[in-house]
Amino acid sequence: MEKREIIIDLLGSDLGPEEMLEGARLVLEESPDVSVALAGPKALIEAAALPEGRYRIIEAEKTVTNLDNPIEAFYSKEPVSVFKALEEAQRCDDVIGVVSAGNTGALFAGAIRFLLSDKTVRPCIAAILPNMQGGFTCLVDTGASIDCGSAQLVDFAHRGSDFMRRLYKLDSPRVGLLSNGAEPTKGNKLVKETHALLAKEEGINFVGNIEGNKTLSGLCDVLVCEGFAGNQVLKNSEGMAVNLITEIIKYGKTHNVPAAKEIVGYLMSRFDFASLGAGIMLGTQKVVMKCRGSSNRTAIKNAARILTNLSDNKTLYE
Amino acid sequence: MEKREIIIDLLGSDLGPEEMLEGARLVLEESPDVSVALAGPKALIEAAALPEGRYRIIEAEKTVTNLDNPIEAFYSKEPVSVFKALEEAQRCDDVIGVVSAGNTGALFAGAIRFLLSDKTVRPCIAAILPNMQGGFTCLVDTGASIDCGSAQLVDFAHRGSDFMRRLYKLDSPRVGLLSNGAEPTKGNKLVKETHALLAKEEGINFVGNIEGNKTLSGLCDVLVCEGFAGNQVLKNSEGMAVNLITEIIKYGKTHNVPAAKEIVGYLMSRFDFASLGAGIMLGTQKVVMKCRGSSNRTAIKNAARILTNLSDNKTLYE
Repeated sequence: MEKREIIIDLLGSDLGPEEMLEGARLVLEESPDVSVALAGPKALIEAAALPEGRYRIIEAEKTVTNLDNPIEAFYSKEPVSVFKALEEAQRCDDVIGVVSAGNTGALFAGAIRFLLSDKTVRPCIAAILPNMQGGFTCLVDTGASIDCGSAQLVDFAHRGSDFMRRLYKLDSPRVGLLSNGAEPTKGNKLVKETHALLAKEEGINFVGNIEGNKTLSGLCDVLVCEGFAGNQVLKNSEGMAVNLITEIIKYGKTHNVPAAKEIVGYLMSRFDFASLGAGIMLGTQKVVMKCRGSSNRTAIKNAARILTNLSDNKTLYE
Repeated sequence: MEKREIIIDLLGSDLGPEEMLEGARLVLEESPDVSVALAGPKALIEAAALPEGRYRIIEAEKTVTNLDNPIEAFYSKEPVSVFKALEEAQRCDDVIGVVSAGNTGALFAGAIRFLLSDKTVRPCIAAILPNMQGGFTCLVDTGASIDCGSAQLVDFAHRGSDFMRRLYKLDSPRVGLLSNGAEPTKGNKLVKETHALLAKEEGINFVGNIEGNKTLSGLCDVLVCEGFAGNQVLKNSEGMAVNLITEIIKYGKTHNVPAAKEIVGYLMSRFDFASLGAGIMLGTQKVVMKCRGSSNRTAIKNAARILTNLSDNKTLYE
């Protein structure tokens, strides 16, 4: 088996580099044939005492916060961990992917710079969401490409399909198009244009428009949308799950219903949008996992697992 | 007290004109000082035996289905119930509003034709959604105006504010703008433009961008968005509520948790998007209530109640 390495950007997450290092430790425990390269401050990494010979250090002291301009940070020439990580991913053949929980804009800008050969293509960030059929739906784009055109949406459809073919072993992933009605005549200008293109696109199993209340119904394996709308679907689905769970907890307390706790536990396992760990950047030469800022060690491990599974050519739950 | 009349379009709903007639009966029972005008087939209306002297008939045999082109139907010269209803609303001063559960496009086209004096203005359809603060948020637009510009969004902000002032007696309704991030720099081109306009707009209490996971958090009283995005928020919120409730029911059955039923009952009362009965068309000379196709008699009664409360100048829950 050839050497496989996952690069983890330690800086920029809400829980700090220590939690990211614990994530790295879990990755090494779970995958004995994988090593990690850690982008961050040397002293901190050494203090974590990870298994000898399983890690290396990409020295970087700086990060990009949400208050910084990612492009300015990029040209600052300072050793920024996310850029160092992506540069190393480009340079080194053994690297199977990058995991970061830092600033999205910086990750995106860096990925375009280092991991995109065709600069006319826009990368997109997909989310893999649990659907009501017990399967998963790849929502793409979730907010990386705002104000894009119909040709880009067709491109997202291809990338999402490829990804679902590889990760879930679907022969012919069903592609739906987010719209404001199921009929082909429904949609804004962009959606109507894209509908016509997808209907005749080779290699795409297009199943038509999907309405907002059916996004997680399992009617499609890939749900294509422009980044602004996709961001609404992603955040709104999650927000509503949180809202209902919050209400159940409140009700359980005020009405003394002990079973509420059990039901909340079930719902959290069923609709845990964080369980897959990350958004997945599609279209780059190496797979980049964008974990949310609040990611804990388990989320980091889960993100890394997608990279190893893709590299193994295994489905996600084998 | 002056005469007040509500026009109900009997045709085009999923449950048929009989259910609409039962809705009309409930309206008459609830509001002794209100009468109704019913647009539909004469024989059917007479057969319902509603209280004598409290109703009149607007004869119309035809409706517009989802397969019909609303504009063609409009020019067909046939007696279509929704157009007859709206024409009568324009003609008759006593009419305080129109209730319909038929085709949205037809209702919209008819409302523009008969109830809009300034044809340069685009009407919008608002939804009143229960928020996590125990109050209500007016989401506008929910899908009536697709592909609109920033000036229209500012207009929606005014109409939503006026409505919340009148119906909920809020002095200075907080207006939020749906975006993909809370920071003012976040958004697509339309949202960024609109943000700049709302920030300096007189008479608008602008509180900034609202992210998709905070739409029902109660951070604003009016949530402004373009129709396509608003349609996603509306349908997705509802879809997720249904998804979670479905999962609780399944879990309750398979794991024998009787309390699941109680919790489902609570959630359905808490997040019953249908309870307010309808989308509300704002910007027309008479208020038009667009009930969903599946509306039952109670939804029709609730929609009518908003009309009487607005006319009484009462808040919704007085």
